[in-house]
Amino acid sequence: MTTLGLDIGGTKLAGGVLTDTGELLDYQTQLVHPSHDPERILAQIQAMLGILLGDGRSEVTAIGVGCAGQIDAKSGTVLYSPNLGWRDVPLAARLAKMSKLPVLVDNDVKLAALGEHQFGAGRGIDDMLCVMIGTGIGGGLVLNGQLYDGAGGFAGEVGHTTVQWDGPVCSCGNRGCLEALAAGPAIERMVTDAIRHGRVSLVSELVGGHLDRVHASVLASAIKGGDVLAREVVGRAGYYLGVAMASWVNLLNPQRIILGGGVVRHLPQLLELALQECRRRSLRAPLANLDVSLAHFGRESGVVGAAWFAHEAVRRKVKAKAA
Amino acid sequence: MTTLGLDIGGTKLAGGVLTDTGELLDYQTQLVHPSHDPERILAQIQAMLGILLGDGRSEVTAIGVGCAGQIDAKSGTVLYSPNLGWRDVPLAARLAKMSKLPVLVDNDVKLAALGEHQFGAGRGIDDMLCVMIGTGIGGGLVLNGQLYDGAGGFAGEVGHTTVQWDGPVCSCGNRGCLEALAAGPAIERMVTDAIRHGRVSLVSELVGGHLDRVHASVLASAIKGGDVLAREVVGRAGYYLGVAMASWVNLLNPQRIILGGGVVRHLPQLLELALQECRRRSLRAPLANLDVSLAHFGRESGVVGAAWFAHEAVRRKVKAKAA
Repeated sequence: MTTLGLDIGGTKLAGGVLTDTGELLDYQTQLVHPSHDPERILAQIQAMLGILLGDGRSEVTAIGVGCAGQIDAKSGTVLYSPNLGWRDVPLAARLAKMSKLPVLVDNDVKLAALGEHQFGAGRGIDDMLCVMIGTGIGGGLVLNGQLYDGAGGFAGEVGHTTVQWDGPVCSCGNRGCLEALAAGPAIERMVTDAIRHGRVSLVSELVGGHLDRVHASVLASAIKGGDVLAREVVGRAGYYLGVAMASWVNLLNPQRIILGGGVVRHLPQLLELALQECRRRSLRAPLANLDVSLAHFGRESGVVGAAWFAHEAVRRKVKAKAA
Repeated sequence: MTTLGLDIGGTKLAGGVLTDTGELLDYQTQLVHPSHDPERILAQIQAMLGILLGDGRSEVTAIGVGCAGQIDAKSGTVLYSPNLGWRDVPLAARLAKMSKLPVLVDNDVKLAALGEHQFGAGRGIDDMLCVMIGTGIGGGLVLNGQLYDGAGGFAGEVGHTTVQWDGPVCSCGNRGCLEALAAGPAIERMVTDAIRHGRVSLVSELVGGHLDRVHASVLASAIKGGDVLAREVVGRAGYYLGVAMASWVNLLNPQRIILGGGVVRHLPQLLELALQECRRRSLRAPLANLDVSLAHFGRESGVVGAAWFAHEAVRRKVKAKAA
């Protein structure tokens, strides 16, 4: 049995077909342009489904979709996606009509966590947090071996852990969220603010003076080149991440925390710095159970997780019918 | 089937017998004096067991024990209890020898959460946090309808959520934990510090100038009498509690948060203040699933939960044998 996974984010659409041993076939990715009207992206999805299903791969039994934003997984509706500009889009129903296949939808980062749990850095781990740091900070929890939904399916918003009650305002409206202190835009702003205030840094040179081009990959190059400012700022982000991690460790006593996403891929030293601060702040007993690792998958984790989400739903249904 | 529950804390020992419909019989409580040597408290427990089991109540099938501190539930060992002064006490083994009954041990506040879930404010709620505020702040999580242990059984340390990365030092060594900002001693210290710095308050009068006698109950009387300082300080504690609650809501998307413990019993207005700040800071989607309520049980929640913990263990064993 194979299933098809789609990952819909604010800047890209990705898709692929997953075998039940976790082999990802025909992985592909396209840029998307967010708009309040979902039709353009739906047309892109239709084209991608055409390619992925079109070569007679009749063994695809279901489609799983990870989508940025708040999802009502029961109905497969995108309630609100700030990244895509969508509100109340009945995504599962639309894609089911397109494909004549069962379609399951959930939050993109939750499903990426599922992918890491099944085939990546979380294999065999019953209690884990997966934290993805990019433009935002999202996450997913696997507790007692199962993806944890919470009361309404919204569990896992690790980026909106308050680290500093009077800290900077976050995109969610709250103050001092981890996302406002350690996501890509926060890190980039800390660097460009310092440069604008006169700090000398290799970063200015690397972007040819265009401070709007500062990005995690640039900071990585600057750190390699020995830049003090870049190291300092990434250190601070790692510090805040470690503060939040200690709260999660004390609350949930996880066996593993997995860190991934674009910022972590470019700046893997975040892991070491965060773990240092997390160790300093966590209670001894839950700390003794903890390890921290980098995500196994890169950008494709969302597609893997989404396809596996559909796989599991089909398997449950078959099992229920048999019983 | 009835089971016996014991609740061992830093200042009191409580016990009682629970019927399987949740009726608590013969509830009793004694003062204890913590010491590194557990023998004195063990002798008190033996006496209490004698009374509770001695009247021929032969239908008691097991003993559940909630104990303050870090517990290895598998072996029933108290690894470390700062409140009791204990390290590595094989509590289950000792009590099993005393009573000739199966003995199950876990953290006192975790088991209080179980009691609230089964017979109290959490009945029928699948995803909930229980937060007990007293000398410390402890808690328990019920997720997917089950008491959540985490990787090593230490999940639920809600009091060690960092609210302020550079805040006051907590008893655990970390900075800015909720416990260091909103537990009984923190609240009392804020009041007495202000009075020592010249603030006029009804509190001084109520304790006859003995600032070491300031306690949640005194603050409650002061607030009733219109005291501004007491209201201000309790408001601040509620605020910090609300900040932490928002992080839990975003991370876990619980259906209910239950607040209990001595400080909350004396100062129930904490709930309203905390909820206000939690509402302001939480993401809209998980907030829509949330309600907050006061604990149903008073001090007896630990005994109820401990007895039910033993009840469940016996039931699982009988079920496993039958299968």
